[in-house]
Amino acid sequence: MIEQLKILVSEYVNVNEAEWSVLSESLEIKEYKRGELFLKEGDFCNYVGFVNKGLFNFYHIKGGIKHIRGFFFSNNLISNYPCFLQKNKSEFYIEAMEDSSITFIHRDALLMLHKELPMVQEFSRVIVESLYLEVSAKYESFFIKTAEERYMDFVQGKPELTKKIPQYMIASYLGITPEGLSRIKKRVS
Amino acid sequence: MIEQLKILVSEYVNVNEAEWSVLSESLEIKEYKRGELFLKEGDFCNYVGFVNKGLFNFYHIKGGIKHIRGFFFSNNLISNYPCFLQKNKSEFYIEAMEDSSITFIHRDALLMLHKELPMVQEFSRVIVESLYLEVSAKYESFFIKTAEERYMDFVQGKPELTKKIPQYMIASYLGITPEGLSRIKKRVS
Repeated sequence: MIEQLKILVSEYVNVNEAEWSVLSESLEIKEYKRGELFLKEGDFCNYVGFVNKGLFNFYHIKGGIKHIRGFFFSNNLISNYPCFLQKNKSEFYIEAMEDSSITFIHRDALLMLHKELPMVQEFSRVIVESLYLEVSAKYESFFIKTAEERYMDFVQGKPELTKKIPQYMIASYLGITPEGLSRIKKRVS
Repeated sequence: MIEQLKILVSEYVNVNEAEWSVLSESLEIKEYKRGELFLKEGDFCNYVGFVNKGLFNFYHIKGGIKHIRGFFFSNNLISNYPCFLQKNKSEFYIEAMEDSSITFIHRDALLMLHKELPMVQEFSRVIVESLYLEVSAKYESFFIKTAEERYMDFVQGKPELTKKIPQYMIASYLGITPEGLSRIKKRVS
């Protein structure tokens, strides 16, 4: 499973065997059953992970209602990254939607590696750049796109994923009602 | 003016005189009159800058209407950073709202410095982390905050800046109508 992460890292930065050997000593693997939490409200976000397999959702609870704010899927990073960077307590939950597996690293180990291995520093930079681009596009889409266009972006970006996710979660994620989503789906089908 | 940038850099990373001397060779300074553009729609975003003094706004034009998406002010970075990272053409304008000055660097020079000086790589990482945190908070605020709360966040975050900015621009930035903003201001005053 750690090999899978190595492939991802190699897509972004050059990494040799010696560097990988040092880095992989700080990695841990954990399995999650469906419904199990990677993070819960009030926890410190000390870890950033990589989803070896499975699917997670990212939500907060307000007035007893689950508000879905994101999904983490296979071959992607997983964390409440703002919280990880700011070292504060999470207002969000991260929950396995199916049996899943994560390779993760503790913040302290990562910060040590930044000093020890320039490629880790570089990898952290390109990762946060890609997270920044993703959230910037989502933020701007609120101003320049309709709910229908945002739904199409979501589906086209992750077609396989979309099939696995209940409609009410997609509606919540897009900030629209389930009825609004049904109307959009009728229009675009 | 370059000293001002050095202070900012030093707040984030350790930088010695030799490193600063190499870095500062790649920096340029330019003055902008009120109304002058740092970036226009269709331009490649090859530069990232630092506002030595002044104030800029960041907007796009749709259906003949200026939609304000951000502000850049003294002692802060300035760029269409998503566009800078992706090396594509800008859909946005960046315009001086008053006589201003920017210290800037070309992307190619910055990428060379990433290889040459680890502190530049580290600085780029912490800068994009702070941009990521800012846009993540703005994005989440659409789901968890009222327009009034978002207005208060804006004012409290930059009280001095707010006084300099016309109300219609603040309304546009917050994604509300000028009338909506007037009602909010009456309620909170």
